[in-house]
Amino acid sequence: MPSGLDPRTGLPVVAMVGGGQLARMTHQAAVALGQSLRVLAASSDESAALVTADVRLGDHRNLADLQQLADGATVVTFDHEHVPTEHLHALEAAGHRVAPGPDALVHAQDKLVLRRALQEAGEPQPAWAEVRTVHDVTAFVDDVGWPVILKTPRGGYDGKGVFVVDGPDDVAAFLERHGTLLAEERVPMMRELSAQVARSPFGQIAVWPVVETVQRDGVCAEVLAPAPDLSDELATAAQELAVRIADRLGVVGMLAVELFQTADGVLVNELAMRPHNSGHWTIEGARTSQFEQHLRAVLDYPLGSTAMTAPVAVMANVLGGAAAADDWAGPPLDERVHHLMAHWPDVKLHWYGKGLRPGRKLGHVTALGNDLEEVRARAVAAARYLADGIVDDAFAFEQEH
Amino acid sequence: MPSGLDPRTGLPVVAMVGGGQLARMTHQAAVALGQSLRVLAASSDESAALVTADVRLGDHRNLADLQQLADGATVVTFDHEHVPTEHLHALEAAGHRVAPGPDALVHAQDKLVLRRALQEAGEPQPAWAEVRTVHDVTAFVDDVGWPVILKTPRGGYDGKGVFVVDGPDDVAAFLERHGTLLAEERVPMMRELSAQVARSPFGQIAVWPVVETVQRDGVCAEVLAPAPDLSDELATAAQELAVRIADRLGVVGMLAVELFQTADGVLVNELAMRPHNSGHWTIEGARTSQFEQHLRAVLDYPLGSTAMTAPVAVMANVLGGAAAADDWAGPPLDERVHHLMAHWPDVKLHWYGKGLRPGRKLGHVTALGNDLEEVRARAVAAARYLADGIVDDAFAFEQEH
Repeated sequence: MPSGLDPRTGLPVVAMVGGGQLARMTHQAAVALGQSLRVLAASSDESAALVTADVRLGDHRNLADLQQLADGATVVTFDHEHVPTEHLHALEAAGHRVAPGPDALVHAQDKLVLRRALQEAGEPQPAWAEVRTVHDVTAFVDDVGWPVILKTPRGGYDGKGVFVVDGPDDVAAFLERHGTLLAEERVPMMRELSAQVARSPFGQIAVWPVVETVQRDGVCAEVLAPAPDLSDELATAAQELAVRIADRLGVVGMLAVELFQTADGVLVNELAMRPHNSGHWTIEGARTSQFEQHLRAVLDYPLGSTAMTAPVAVMANVLGGAAAADDWAGPPLDERVHHLMAHWPDVKLHWYGKGLRPGRKLGHVTALGNDLEEVRARAVAAARYLADGIVDDAFAFEQEH
Repeated sequence: MPSGLDPRTGLPVVAMVGGGQLARMTHQAAVALGQSLRVLAASSDESAALVTADVRLGDHRNLADLQQLADGATVVTFDHEHVPTEHLHALEAAGHRVAPGPDALVHAQDKLVLRRALQEAGEPQPAWAEVRTVHDVTAFVDDVGWPVILKTPRGGYDGKGVFVVDGPDDVAAFLERHGTLLAEERVPMMRELSAQVARSPFGQIAVWPVVETVQRDGVCAEVLAPAPDLSDELATAAQELAVRIADRLGVVGMLAVELFQTADGVLVNELAMRPHNSGHWTIEGARTSQFEQHLRAVLDYPLGSTAMTAPVAVMANVLGGAAAADDWAGPPLDERVHHLMAHWPDVKLHWYGKGLRPGRKLGHVTALGNDLEEVRARAVAAARYLADGIVDDAFAFEQEH
């Protein structure tokens, strides 16, 4: 039996760094394939650790913990981008397979590295500059005007580490606090899109329909699949862009290319090389989910069909409300789940088992159907009810208009 | 917080007796609902024990093991029918919720109890008799003629404990070996059907389309959903029959009513009060799977939509070949999975992680589509390839004609 297969089953063992909801949902997909996801979690009550059989407690910044995770596994992959690049090189040097590899993953870890790579490839992106001094910023502003977006190259997500700066006053303070920053023009965007592909080491690539991602306060709130009113030309262009990036960077596994749509086309915002919030709709909405596909890709299995199972799928996130962590205003969760099921018998629930925290992604719901307005209203109302315990059908209506 | 909710999540804990593939797939559904299935398994390498976080090792015939499983759980349910009735009464007496309850479950455990109940209810079933002596059998044969079917009232499944007897010669030996038996006429059946419903304690009932189950050597080989060429009248009659049985027996959870279709209608063969092989197609083929619905029902949650997601769904079981347990003839499993994915990119795999054994249910595949012949050929060829490692497209063709 080749090394890295589970002797109990004769099938691979995928080890995932991170115990969040992405690992949790990847485990569900692994179970169908005869596998059991091995998870490196920071604590036993993390989302994935609550539901998986093979949990290793440890720190993703600690090489010994990573090595222990990798020992006996077929391949190591990720539910976040926060593993130090040098640790990944060390794992590879020790003979472990890492997917995506460190030289690809760094483009999802470091926004400056991504900007340089896209520039070299001639791919569309916002005007940008690497800035270390106030002078760097004002020189950049001479080209693009205020406001500019300042981003920490590493560590930001869900709007964290991103600052909209309207004038020179705060620049010195930002630079002092964060060091080298990425400056970007504020793009006159119409909306945000996501193009997801999966790529295997063999080089096979699978492409899902391009989706629209609706953000609120920098956090993904809804995903509309396929992106409504997107021309075939632009959809194809976005898909081809994602395929080119996956190929050029040698991505293995899932790749989400977050895009700004402008009057002139699409610009690359950033990349994620793992299952991504913009692909949760694929669990019910596509023949192969992003979670199964990620496993297939990192294992160099042939990829599955990405055909949609319905004309329209809408995913809505359930975000923790403004109340304090232990203060779940309104009906208790179990009662909300009862009500959700009674009110929306065909909305699919995915609850992550996490503690409450304002703004935290606690779960999501997916609705399928034929008519975008109707499907979206259903998903958004269900997610909103789970989040705040208030049934407000007017909200659904308001979303439509 | 009400007792029986997981303090880490605020959500219920369902405890399932048995660690087979039904528990394994129920866990996948539990994860989406924010839960983690607690499993009583006989060993740590059982199908469900490989993939769940909360495994209790023990014996389903041991009351102490059952009590330990039930402690702190919201409800106890089953992946098989083999728990002694008196233990279930003992659990209820100790304040635990058991679903289905022992007075319902006994009808799935004891075929004589079922026959008496159906007779009392006036529901259609084969001619039958409780037989203790050779004279009992020959008196029954005077009515129905040879051959007769002799069944052990308890413990049989997948064709085990069922004997077709062509004449009086072997009857004495069977009776001596097994004691009291159930004798049934051999029904001149056209095919076998299954009508699945779920019922909650509140009394809500959800009904899936009636399916055809194709048996080989007494084991389910394929399930065709919906049952082809079934008149609306007969489909409705079968569904209403299943609803009446669920109500009359007070079933809580999934109920599969296995039916013989004859020229005159349908007759009840036997019952299963748990997720059932005839409902595996619902994972992809229905908006709510039987596994999610079982959880919803035993928790008294509102039930989910049973609408189909495609016009046709076909499930094909992968059965262990005739080779000895460790002698997996042909390509190793991992290579078969590669090939399956390459050849059938939209067939969905469910592999149970079990050791090989001739005739054992190792996994299943599901295909969806519009045309029964095409969908069935795809599912059957894929399952056959997984079972024996031989690609035989002619087989698929032969199935169609």
